[in-house]
Amino acid sequence: MTTFLAVDWGTTNRRVYRIEDGRVAAVESDDRGVKAMAREDYASEIATMRARFGDLPVLIVGMAGSTIGWHEVPYVAAPASIESLAAGLHHVDARTAIVPGVSRLNEGQGEVMRGEEVQILGALAAGLVPADALVCQPGTHCKWVTLSGGSIVDFTTAMTGELFALLKAHSVLAAQLTHEVRDGAAFAEGVRRGAERDLLAALFGVRAASVLGLRDDSDAASYASGLLIGADVAARRVAGREVHLLAEAALGDLYAHAIEMQGGHALRIDSQTAFVAGAAAIGELCL
Amino acid sequence: MTTFLAVDWGTTNRRVYRIEDGRVAAVESDDRGVKAMAREDYASEIATMRARFGDLPVLIVGMAGSTIGWHEVPYVAAPASIESLAAGLHHVDARTAIVPGVSRLNEGQGEVMRGEEVQILGALAAGLVPADALVCQPGTHCKWVTLSGGSIVDFTTAMTGELFALLKAHSVLAAQLTHEVRDGAAFAEGVRRGAERDLLAALFGVRAASVLGLRDDSDAASYASGLLIGADVAARRVAGREVHLLAEAALGDLYAHAIEMQGGHALRIDSQTAFVAGAAAIGELCL
Repeated sequence: MTTFLAVDWGTTNRRVYRIEDGRVAAVESDDRGVKAMAREDYASEIATMRARFGDLPVLIVGMAGSTIGWHEVPYVAAPASIESLAAGLHHVDARTAIVPGVSRLNEGQGEVMRGEEVQILGALAAGLVPADALVCQPGTHCKWVTLSGGSIVDFTTAMTGELFALLKAHSVLAAQLTHEVRDGAAFAEGVRRGAERDLLAALFGVRAASVLGLRDDSDAASYASGLLIGADVAARRVAGREVHLLAEAALGDLYAHAIEMQGGHALRIDSQTAFVAGAAAIGELCL
Repeated sequence: MTTFLAVDWGTTNRRVYRIEDGRVAAVESDDRGVKAMAREDYASEIATMRARFGDLPVLIVGMAGSTIGWHEVPYVAAPASIESLAAGLHHVDARTAIVPGVSRLNEGQGEVMRGEEVQILGALAAGLVPADALVCQPGTHCKWVTLSGGSIVDFTTAMTGELFALLKAHSVLAAQLTHEVRDGAAFAEGVRRGAERDLLAALFGVRAASVLGLRDDSDAASYASGLLIGADVAARRVAGREVHLLAEAALGDLYAHAIEMQGGHALRIDSQTAFVAGAAAIGELCL
């Protein structure tokens, strides 16, 4: 198989790629994520994609394979490689398949991912990360993934992005968190305080600093973002380690800054390149 | 002065006491907190209280002295004693005064309280805590207060209660957090994990455990409460220390459990007794 369609079907957004010999021939994004779909919509959505991008095999990645998606596809247990994902594909029909997510159990604690695994193993397939590496995918639910021998062997999910959004929308800090986050001195100050890993107290400090006039409110969002990202990075103990960052530009800059401040070395990877490489590697095995 | 009215005027609720010789002769609570008031309402509210409870001096404590209250009363800087609070009273008129809050500055970090100071210094005045003590007042914004030589010398505020409420109302965990919090095995498991102070990752674990069927959803709220309270207590390093708890029964039980699990010794104090003793001690000095 050299030409197929890959769909990165998330909760809120969706991106469709036409992939030819491992390269992107066409790509289109929209907001027709899983939340915007009823179960009976998927078949016609796929037909529409084929009409638009070519009557080709379709590989679906992400939340379309979850309980709130089209077909629930069981997680593949870590350690997970491109081969494990391919073996765990759910074939909806002969030309349409859904990639499984990955789960991990470690001393009674569980972890799950659905969608990130293709980017991460794709980065590996494309030679963008080594076979043994620490990969960080910031976002609403930030993933920290340990690759060993070319497989995902362990990972941790931090609610960093979601917590920031909650605080901004609904908390006593909402009035202070109205400005854009900037990668400057206030962010760095937040990272330092966040690294003390006393987040519950550090967050209230945003309000106290405002009440006492210790920090300009226009810096509060940057500081609070620093607290959260600083606490997230500190718990991963990155000192002396390389961290491979799969992130869009602005959020990647913030994580890179925090990682470097805590003695790690951040290396950036392009998310789209990684996704396409992962989808192509699975497609080569199965479609 | 032996007889006066004391008003604990919070953001949401209000409680009026008639105090005679340091004892409560009458008490009434309602939901006419600061949020329910316009600035011009306070004078008539006070007149109504006097008509109902006696034409007496009135001592006001709490958010009525804040920017969103009646008159903004400047914070007294720590170290703060009953005498400092009395000296910082804002006299609205000859028979009506508002107690100031307390602020602290420590290496550029700020802290503020407004209302808790009267309970804490009242507990001291009533002999319920020693002159050198660690006092914990759990709630939306949990206060951890260091008393030394009979003054509040330092304190920390943790957003523990507010964060739990945010997660329950608005987060990806909302569907799991619908049950009552119980002080049992799931809470204790949460405290242990919370003590690792990796809250951002531990919280996502609530969802992963549900998705993977590792924990009954009816235990999720207890576990999540344990995570937050465990993280809060762990950051205070209570091992080998006495912690004096000013809390209502159920929340006090949870904090006491977490404190004992982390090697501290929890001692309970009745909040109303402490408040009345604090108000009476200020009243003796100034009304």
